[in-house]
Amino acid sequence: GVTMLEKAKKIIEAAEKKAVEIKVPMVIAVVDAGGNLVAQHRMDGALIASIAIARDKAYTAVALQMPTDQAALQTLPGQPLYGLNTTDGGRLVIFGGGYPIYENGAIVGGLGVSGGAVEEDMAVARAGLAG
Amino acid sequence: GVTMLEKAKKIIEAAEKKAVEIKVPMVIAVVDAGGNLVAQHRMDGALIASIAIARDKAYTAVALQMPTDQAALQTLPGQPLYGLNTTDGGRLVIFGGGYPIYENGAIVGGLGVSGGAVEEDMAVARAGLAG
Amino acid sequence: GVTMLEKAKKIIEAAEKKAVEIKVPMVIAVVDAGGNLVAQHRMDGALIASIAIARDKAYTAVALQMPTDQAALQTLPGQPLYGLNTTDGGRLVIFGGGYPIYENGAIVGGLGVSGGAVEEDMAVARAGLAG
Amino acid sequence: GVTMLEKAKKIIEAAEKKAVEIKVPMVIAVVDAGGNLVAQHRMDGALIASIAIARDKAYTAVALQMPTDQAALQTLPGQPLYGLNTTDGGRLVIFGGGYPIYENGAIVGGLGVSGGAVEEDMAVARAGLAG
Repeated sequence: GVTMLEKAKKIIEAAEKKAVEIKVPMVIAVVDAGGNLVAQHRMDGALIASIAIARDKAYTAVALQMPTDQAALQTLPGQPLYGLNTTDGGRLVIFGGGYPIYENGAIVGGLGVSGGAVEEDMAVARAGLAG
Repeated sequence: GVTMLEKAKKIIEAAEKKAVEIKVPMVIAVVDAGGNLVAQHRMDGALIASIAIARDKAYTAVALQMPTDQAALQTLPGQPLYGLNTTDGGRLVIFGGGYPIYENGAIVGGLGVSGGAVEEDMAVARAGLAG
Repeated sequence: GVTMLEKAKKIIEAAEKKAVEIKVPMVIAVVDAGGNLVAQHRMDGALIASIAIARDKAYTAVALQMPTDQAALQTLPGQPLYGLNTTDGGRLVIFGGGYPIYENGAIVGGLGVSGGAVEEDMAVARAGLAG
Repeated sequence: GVTMLEKAKKIIEAAEKKAVEIKVPMVIAVVDAGGNLVAQHRMDGALIASIAIARDKAYTAVALQMPTDQAALQTLPGQPLYGLNTTDGGRLVIFGGGYPIYENGAIVGGLGVSGGAVEEDMAVARAGLAG
């Protein structure tokens, strides 16, 4: 079968291609179902802050079992999960760019992309998942 | 007398029963009056992020001596405790699911539940406290 | 099938029985194959420091795929892994009391026990694994 | 010219080939001259603890401007740098497997390998640097 690292490399390669296309250097990270890192690439010129953010987006997508952008609305002031992003050691990211990786309907990992505007991060991540 | 661990197990068991009933896998944690962990269970399929959040909700209920949902209103932007949740090493959770455990009118510990929507976490926690 | 939480409870119960027998209050923790907590119990009177140590022993047994006591010799001053225990955010414990949990030859989790002398921790952990 | 990410991928690929050859799953990380991650791969079956350790070995090689194994002797009890590995937030690794990456005599990054015995980590890292 295909290893998780091979899967991760393929996803990252596809994401990287999209990032080159839209001319925004990105950091792209993949974690496994336990939230532990499988692979991470930082394109030259990508923000240093994006190293942690991409990794934490990938972790969050697994840890919350949802795309990270879905967490944003529920954490607005006055909303039910206001304050969520300061829990779990500050590892939970509540803006777009993190997606669960599904296989046969089950979450087998998470993908996190950071480096551009949120919409750009999301587009690059979706390109990665689309392979 | 009954040990704190026995009390915690009983509370967790009752909470777990409710979580099974509403079909949401939860993490349930009990701390003592010093905020230190007594017992914690993670049901299969519960969110990984909930491990830290449940524990910290239990801690917060003791540390602030109030249910965690009561802290939400006071920490909105412009309110007296705005920013509270980034103090104390990020351990203070300001949304529902954490409750002090009372005995003869005194706080002897805290219960934290995480895994579902905030209302679900609160319902499971209340079921735990009701025994 | 049996859930991981049920497995963990059974292991913890057996360990706890042994701890009662040797009259040393212990903290007992079980993590899954990703190193994430499944269940943890602190017996009344157990050291507060043991909360983190038991959890980290369980994590270490999975993270290093070996019993934690095996890491001790290799980390002595002048030995190959001297300094190992200050890596990985200080989560790696290099004294006895942490064991991988095997099922059909594969590591499915880790068990960590802390509270007594190292030999006592190891005896309680082994009793837990023996069920 | 060649990007740092391309350099890192090439180093990681060569290291990975050696790891496959000696049949030890490894985590391989490359940082830039600022100590910030460029790329990291975890082979299936590699130790979870190695995620942090490989990254920190690469960082240490840049931060101390020397291979990590050279730091071991100087940090023995009684030696000049005894205690070094508990400084810098615990990120400094003092056993083998981390090497500076040189280009035209200057350090342009660091390589960290973790997953096997120290000698195996070093052999895989050297294979990575040899390309």
